Amino acid sequence: MSGSLVIVGLGPGSSDLLTPAAARALQAATDLVGYGPYLDRIPQANLDQRRHSSGNRVEIDRARHALTLAGEGRKVAVVSGGDPGVFAMAAAVFEAIEAGDPAWRELDIHVEPGITAMLAAAAEVGAPLGGDFCAVSLSDNLKSWETIERRLRAAAQGDFVIALYNPASKARPHQLGQAFNLLRTIKSPHTLVLFVQKAATPETRVIVATLAEVDPALADMRTLVIIGATATRLIPRTGQRPWVYTPRAETGIAR
Amino acid sequence: MSGSLVIVGLGPGSSDLLTPAAARALQAATDLVGYGPYLDRIPQANLDQRRHSSGNRVEIDRARHALTLAGEGRKVAVVSGGDPGVFAMAAAVFEAIEAGDPAWRELDIHVEPGITAMLAAAAEVGAPLGGDFCAVSLSDNLKSWETIERRLRAAAQGDFVIALYNPASKARPHQLGQAFNLLRTIKSPHTLVLFVQKAATPETRVIVATLAEVDPALADMRTLVIIGATATRLIPRTGQRPWVYTPRAETGIAR
Repeated sequence: MSGSLVIVGLGPGSSDLLTPAAARALQAATDLVGYGPYLDRIPQANLDQRRHSSGNRVEIDRARHALTLAGEGRKVAVVSGGDPGVFAMAAAVFEAIEAGDPAWRELDIHVEPGITAMLAAAAEVGAPLGGDFCAVSLSDNLKSWETIERRLRAAAQGDFVIALYNPASKARPHQLGQAFNLLRTIKSPHTLVLFVQKAATPETRVIVATLAEVDPALADMRTLVIIGATATRLIPRTGQRPWVYTPRAETGIAR
Repeated sequence: MSGSLVIVGLGPGSSDLLTPAAARALQAATDLVGYGPYLDRIPQANLDQRRHSSGNRVEIDRARHALTLAGEGRKVAVVSGGDPGVFAMAAAVFEAIEAGDPAWRELDIHVEPGITAMLAAAAEVGAPLGGDFCAVSLSDNLKSWETIERRLRAAAQGDFVIALYNPASKARPHQLGQAFNLLRTIKSPHTLVLFVQKAATPETRVIVATLAEVDPALADMRTLVIIGATATRLIPRTGQRPWVYTPRAETGIAR
């Protein structure tokens, strides 16, 4: 088969955080496939470049469509927010390949990494991911809530920093509160909790709280939540938001 | 204080994966501070730009030096491999700020995110981080081996995909084998294990094995190790390395 498919990570939004490799892959594509708002971020490379926009809950259909186009010989770029391999389009494409036309396995397929949300969110507040950490999607569209609770419990017992993707949506308003309640049974009430909304955009908003007092209702679909480990610390500043970081050493800071 | 400090993520190596924001920060700096081999990757912006190179085990001294320069009014960029917030320079800088001159808290400080090793490694093999995952540094230079074992056990009990940074060095040749032995007491022998060396470079090398048969001696300092979850799957291909990915749904692939 002569077609190709690249799954491109757009990063958090701004073209400032789009890698040159990703930009080149978008430029070279004959067909761009993705969720409408992501496609809207991408400048048209030329008059012949086609766009195939879809809703945000049809990943597997979008993946099959992209593979079908590549199978017809097109140079397809599937666009993904953040990094395509982290709670984004790459897994859906490989699911479609495994279950689909065996000829799709012969296609030229490539993944272009991007800045995933937790890296951009962490950079806004300091270095909260400075120690060992976990990333958990709180969405139970594709896995059971029991699995999510099992993972949160394990992450707390391992004293990992925890990055929560998809913490809340209109269809799932109560799960973040449930997650905090579970974590409160294991972690200290003084544990630092960060909400970072729209990281790496001009509208970035940060909330720094403790596990005891955090208000889950302040999170939305554009929020990345970071829950500290025991070692995670806050550096107060005069007239500015504090820095939050996790030292490299578990015993605290080097002197 | 008029100086500034930016902690810049260089990504895995190639300038293709350096973000435009990071490139601009390097260009604008009056002083570049970092581990020698990282500085060697960066083109000289102008004749006045100074370079301050140091060894790779003196992060806290390097951080203090960079803050001192910024305190003197310089525009300092501290360079870091991958993403500065993930097992890299950002935590060391904030440790130095917390323990150092209170005036350092007033400096203009910024973190520029980068493509961290596990994202580049995952992109080479498919989408192994497609589900919930943990990142653990296997180095016990700054934390106890007991803490590392506690985290590995928790990650296995939570059925996370596990990305291991710093899996081996000349000073620590046996720890990856010990980690695999521990994981074998909890995880299936069929668990997929990936070694990705020098991801996103022309010398990338990938090993796909199972937990039962993997040889820890094949990892070195430039290797990122990924240990699959129960759901992690392999897609065989004719005459090529298989794809490895973790489906979004715990119950397997969508059809």
